[in-house]
Amino acid sequence: MTTKTHEPISHPAREDLELPAVLHALSDPIRLRIVAGLAGDGERTCGGFALPVTKSTCTHHFKVLREAGVIRQRQEGTARLNTLRRDDLDARFPGLLDTILAAA
Amino acid sequence: MTTKTHEPISHPAREDLELPAVLHALSDPIRLRIVAGLAGDGERTCGGFALPVTKSTCTHHFKVLREAGVIRQRQEGTARLNTLRRDDLDARFPGLLDTILAAA
Repeated sequence: MTTKTHEPISHPAREDLELPAVLHALSDPIRLRIVAGLAGDGERTCGGFALPVTKSTCTHHFKVLREAGVIRQRQEGTARLNTLRRDDLDARFPGLLDTILAAA
Repeated sequence: MTTKTHEPISHPAREDLELPAVLHALSDPIRLRIVAGLAGDGERTCGGFALPVTKSTCTHHFKVLREAGVIRQRQEGTARLNTLRRDDLDARFPGLLDTILAAA
């Protein structure tokens, strides 16, 4: 029996988060919906969102969010679980996340 | 003597401003600098900013900001004057502009 291994998932450190990258990650309606969903729930998979996009597009949106430091991803078996990096975002850009979610 | 005429400059109406487009317009370091500058001053030309970009790049950035509804542009002779649409942004997305400027 072989076990599929996954590459380590990289995340920028809190101090390396950059405002332009975070704003870019949030500048898409689908990604705003994902972030709003994660703000309500604790941890969700890509498939946990009823999004009008293909799975690969969904995967891409999660990657953009992760690379900007907006979400954290972890692998659990075949599932990739996503959480919002609220503490990091609030520490670096106070009020930004709540203001954007309120406006979305 | 001929007078150079300029095409009308179009701006989205307040009710047509969209959050993803506004966030995209603000997701660039140069455009963030422009907006921060306009937030301090009333009205400035492209050349009024000491930006490390060519004039055509500068013109492009102002166009992105205008089309997203972040700034208003008006022609005065050969100069194009820019102002921040603070009232419209504050009305549509309360607190967003100040939060982003504070984080920038």
